[in-house]
Amino acid sequence: MTKVGIIGGTGYAGGELARILCTHPDVEISAMTSRQNAGAKVSDVHPYLRGYVDISFTERISDTDDLDLVFVATPHGVAMKEVPALLERGIKAIDLSGDYRIHDVDVYKKWYGHEHTDAENLQRAVYGLPEFFRDEIRGADLVANPGCYATSIILACAPLLKSGLVEEDVIVDAKSGTSGAGMVPTTRTHHSTCGESIIPYSVGNHRHTPEVEMAVDRFAGSCMRVTFVPQLVPIVRGILSSCYFNLRRDATQEEVDTIYVSQYGGERFVHYVSEPSIRAVAGSNHAQVASRVVGGKVVAFGVVDNLVKGAAGQAVQCMNLMLGLKETTGMDTPGLGV
Amino acid sequence: MTKVGIIGGTGYAGGELARILCTHPDVEISAMTSRQNAGAKVSDVHPYLRGYVDISFTERISDTDDLDLVFVATPHGVAMKEVPALLERGIKAIDLSGDYRIHDVDVYKKWYGHEHTDAENLQRAVYGLPEFFRDEIRGADLVANPGCYATSIILACAPLLKSGLVEEDVIVDAKSGTSGAGMVPTTRTHHSTCGESIIPYSVGNHRHTPEVEMAVDRFAGSCMRVTFVPQLVPIVRGILSSCYFNLRRDATQEEVDTIYVSQYGGERFVHYVSEPSIRAVAGSNHAQVASRVVGGKVVAFGVVDNLVKGAAGQAVQCMNLMLGLKETTGMDTPGLGV
Amino acid sequence: MTKVGIIGGTGYAGGELARILCTHPDVEISAMTSRQNAGAKVSDVHPYLRGYVDISFTERISDTDDLDLVFVATPHGVAMKEVPALLERGIKAIDLSGDYRIHDVDVYKKWYGHEHTDAENLQRAVYGLPEFFRDEIRGADLVANPGCYATSIILACAPLLKSGLVEEDVIVDAKSGTSGAGMVPTTRTHHSTCGESIIPYSVGNHRHTPEVEMAVDRFAGSCMRVTFVPQLVPIVRGILSSCYFNLRRDATQEEVDTIYVSQYGGERFVHYVSEPSIRAVAGSNHAQVASRVVGGKVVAFGVVDNLVKGAAGQAVQCMNLMLGLKETTGMDTPGLGV
Amino acid sequence: MTKVGIIGGTGYAGGELARILCTHPDVEISAMTSRQNAGAKVSDVHPYLRGYVDISFTERISDTDDLDLVFVATPHGVAMKEVPALLERGIKAIDLSGDYRIHDVDVYKKWYGHEHTDAENLQRAVYGLPEFFRDEIRGADLVANPGCYATSIILACAPLLKSGLVEEDVIVDAKSGTSGAGMVPTTRTHHSTCGESIIPYSVGNHRHTPEVEMAVDRFAGSCMRVTFVPQLVPIVRGILSSCYFNLRRDATQEEVDTIYVSQYGGERFVHYVSEPSIRAVAGSNHAQVASRVVGGKVVAFGVVDNLVKGAAGQAVQCMNLMLGLKETTGMDTPGLGV
Repeated sequence: MTKVGIIGGTGYAGGELARILCTHPDVEISAMTSRQNAGAKVSDVHPYLRGYVDISFTERISDTDDLDLVFVATPHGVAMKEVPALLERGIKAIDLSGDYRIHDVDVYKKWYGHEHTDAENLQRAVYGLPEFFRDEIRGADLVANPGCYATSIILACAPLLKSGLVEEDVIVDAKSGTSGAGMVPTTRTHHSTCGESIIPYSVGNHRHTPEVEMAVDRFAGSCMRVTFVPQLVPIVRGILSSCYFNLRRDATQEEVDTIYVSQYGGERFVHYVSEPSIRAVAGSNHAQVASRVVGGKVVAFGVVDNLVKGAAGQAVQCMNLMLGLKETTGMDTPGLGV
Repeated sequence: MTKVGIIGGTGYAGGELARILCTHPDVEISAMTSRQNAGAKVSDVHPYLRGYVDISFTERISDTDDLDLVFVATPHGVAMKEVPALLERGIKAIDLSGDYRIHDVDVYKKWYGHEHTDAENLQRAVYGLPEFFRDEIRGADLVANPGCYATSIILACAPLLKSGLVEEDVIVDAKSGTSGAGMVPTTRTHHSTCGESIIPYSVGNHRHTPEVEMAVDRFAGSCMRVTFVPQLVPIVRGILSSCYFNLRRDATQEEVDTIYVSQYGGERFVHYVSEPSIRAVAGSNHAQVASRVVGGKVVAFGVVDNLVKGAAGQAVQCMNLMLGLKETTGMDTPGLGV
Repeated sequence: MTKVGIIGGTGYAGGELARILCTHPDVEISAMTSRQNAGAKVSDVHPYLRGYVDISFTERISDTDDLDLVFVATPHGVAMKEVPALLERGIKAIDLSGDYRIHDVDVYKKWYGHEHTDAENLQRAVYGLPEFFRDEIRGADLVANPGCYATSIILACAPLLKSGLVEEDVIVDAKSGTSGAGMVPTTRTHHSTCGESIIPYSVGNHRHTPEVEMAVDRFAGSCMRVTFVPQLVPIVRGILSSCYFNLRRDATQEEVDTIYVSQYGGERFVHYVSEPSIRAVAGSNHAQVASRVVGGKVVAFGVVDNLVKGAAGQAVQCMNLMLGLKETTGMDTPGLGV
Repeated sequence: MTKVGIIGGTGYAGGELARILCTHPDVEISAMTSRQNAGAKVSDVHPYLRGYVDISFTERISDTDDLDLVFVATPHGVAMKEVPALLERGIKAIDLSGDYRIHDVDVYKKWYGHEHTDAENLQRAVYGLPEFFRDEIRGADLVANPGCYATSIILACAPLLKSGLVEEDVIVDAKSGTSGAGMVPTTRTHHSTCGESIIPYSVGNHRHTPEVEMAVDRFAGSCMRVTFVPQLVPIVRGILSSCYFNLRRDATQEEVDTIYVSQYGGERFVHYVSEPSIRAVAGSNHAQVASRVVGGKVVAFGVVDNLVKGAAGQAVQCMNLMLGLKETTGMDTPGLGV
């Protein structure tokens, strides 16, 4: 059994990692940290893990822990302080925060508001989207796990961009469930505020904007411009991103379908469908992509469970690759459907 | 125009009072206080009041304000410090908190955890449930506005208790929308916590328990024992309280129907119906009551919008009585229905 | 009292009309029709109207009814059969369906799938958006009440289009609550289907597309191209339409703000705000518009309660104008806020 | 691989059975029937099963199908026509409908409204609640899978009843998500009806009433009287049943805790907890039970995902026992938590 640890085990991403890993056949959760809950049993903090995770939270990963890989599921700014020591000890790391997603330290500072203190490792970090960077992830010792919005957007947009069929200027109107905002209660995620509402926020200045632009540049050789408008909707799990492109030339629905089918036909977790559905992927690592040609435009939809394919599930998918396991190990289950 | 003030104008009850009062034909909102938002325009804090309330929040009710009546919509423990001065100045007061609901200071201390500092005025406070204490409210200068749960429960239970048909031991299984918990974000009202859940809380120790027992004692001459289990459900506005009684003797549905019809047949805001519906009362001061005889038991349902008939609307209903106005003035509108 | 009738009183729009009209000071609901519920008391079908509407549904508007104005709240295709007779009898009509919105019978046939049988009156129908066609509505005897989506979109887009600042090619990503789909249960509006989901539908072929294009042409002299993607979200009331434009030239947020403020500064029901909120308008005839300049684009948000400003409320606003009443009569109340 | 079939594969229970069975290590889904969708691929009707279930729906189970066990997931009244032939062919059967739950044909007729046509097999049907009838299930060839409400109620009530500590007269106030009502759209499950509401229905006459009474009688030797009030709440998955008992004598919380811990301490899927949570069990076969002593009463809470432990999951648990497999095979995963 490979031993893994989770730094930041109290939050939603940390709990979700444990939920997936606890039934993984080749991996054992040896350590989970939490400043807030150090000393407490993990299953007292996350009661759904009772019977599945028997360890207690520790303040920090111990220096003597014999770990092969650590997930860092902390707020932005923490991972860059934890990762260098892990790598030095030969422990592979997957960071679920934004710390290692943006390779340019100036861009990082502009969007995150503080200096990046680990520029060195930033360069070796691989962007953890297996459907596009599978080989790099296999050989990586540091993976920057994509953001939840970014995952849904890139999966929807990348095939079109690679095809050259569309202009490199996309409008992304994204809708997210509230779990994407994390476990800390805020006015915006207060049920009475968001329960019968749809709330645009961070319009034009959300941090997933440069992430998407940079990721797309890498594999599409293009320089995509993203106008990103996230909106909170009153569901718990799920993202639907609607992405609008201008076609460079007339194109039929069939042409566009072919592009997506050739991209995702062989993927286990990404499905090109006619009617995108959050419930079809909820609770699972599956994603759905759909598209519709409308006049001289095409709208592409990307759907994920923000906590699974949009966070913990994708991280485990990367882990499987980094450990030389079959990519789907421990998470090859369908979405809830209903 | 009668001049009224609102102490505690930032919270949901304060905002709802302003929403109702701003179109009231005989009353003018002359002052609204808020420690947190003093100096800010009321309509900047409550944007739905734009065009309806033009004043700004003040830190306190000024000594020179020429007010006829003040609503106190603050957390428990504050009203008892504000009310004595108001009454001394000849200003009538309606307290929406729990400070003046429990006449016994020992019971108060037991359930609220601190001493009552205004025992004197406690005795003159009238319980503001017009359907049962209409005459007392008309003559009162201090009204204790009932709690939201308490309103739904008493309306459902009182006719049965008065009839002598049921045992004085009721089980109340109540379900409330999240706005009943107020505007301060908490883990329980965090959308990801409550959004797809039903959460029992304060089982057997909620403060509306003694309130209901005491209120019922007053008009039913009975000594009701209440087992009260509140539960949070993922809706914004609305309470449904299901109240279970043992019948003292066999009774038909028709007998029970007659009891309710004779109690509420002449009421404008309380309706005895066959199918209780939260949507039918949402946004309005209306309440619904229903009942069903099942074996040797009867279940009585009470439905209110917790912010209107369960709080601000009922307070305005009391105000109308205290000012000698028609009881329904300024709030005689149907529920949303959908 | 002016006597009005409602054809199609069972549905959500019909019920909502009655909800608003029943407290209107200058109008009396003299007749409501329903094929399905003919003979039943209106308040038995719509229990929230108990105490407010005392008539029963009839099969048809009687030939002897002395009505001044009739609302037609039926599915598409019915109004065109009812309106000619009404107008002949000198009864003004407001149609809430799509029958009289599209002036070109060929466009009508293309989008609605059947011939228009009242081409004659089609030409005299005025588009019932008071903020843009106030004078025409005042003199009209036939008003085509705008669609719910169309209202939210036009209010958001029109000022920008009139200003000439933006290209005449807009992407509209709209989100609607389920009441917009009407009262007939369907798979899509089944709670288990839509309750934790966001569902795109009628992508690129929704009937409000030509309606918006045509309406805008009339007052902007422009020929707007609309890419319209409606999406169902799990709320009951409310629409948020996010409308994306390319700027023709660089523009500041302040410039854009000025455009909206000069358009809506004098309006009672339309508000230009910084943070659009469905709850602020819920239950009321108010609408909110907001905008954000992002790079070379501008996103404009339009928010309405789909049943009020998006349907029945707007119809009553038109009625007030047609009857020579103050435009806000009977509906000048704030949104719920919470 | 053991070959199993599903009769009634279109509905929620049928789809959920396939969702669980498709990753079961020892079982293969060889046939799924659907009158409505015969000929269609299962994964076209249930898109979340794409990649997991590759067969198509057939009209009926073929006479030549070599099946070991069949699940019957049809509406009430169908299973009694299907089961005799299955048993004759030596195929074990698990019926998820109510057809084989009530052993008394007169009671069946009274509550279900029609004659029972398979009285013979009714007697051999074992009630499929493994935590109480494990041994009988192991030896059974016909299992009546419990209802979703019944499961939540019996798990909460049985230990107390067996202990003799409580009176045999329980009030059950149950709240269910909408998926419990099945996939057919109705007015009650229309989102605009139930989306911001709590709806009592079938008060005192729901069919799970005799089921609970009978089940409890079998193992508690008692004759429980159940007053059952189900209520629909706007969540998709999940039931919380609140069960109220009178204590026969004073008892402490600790005494009651001990009763539950000794009952469920060794169970994999039933957990005695302090704070019951639907989210902790959502998507999984786990159940939670909690209790609180309040005055002379005790309230017991039972929580399940109505589609898993309340239907398909429990059926698979029974299947595992009937096939001699480890009871938890293929479904030993935690709930979603968030």
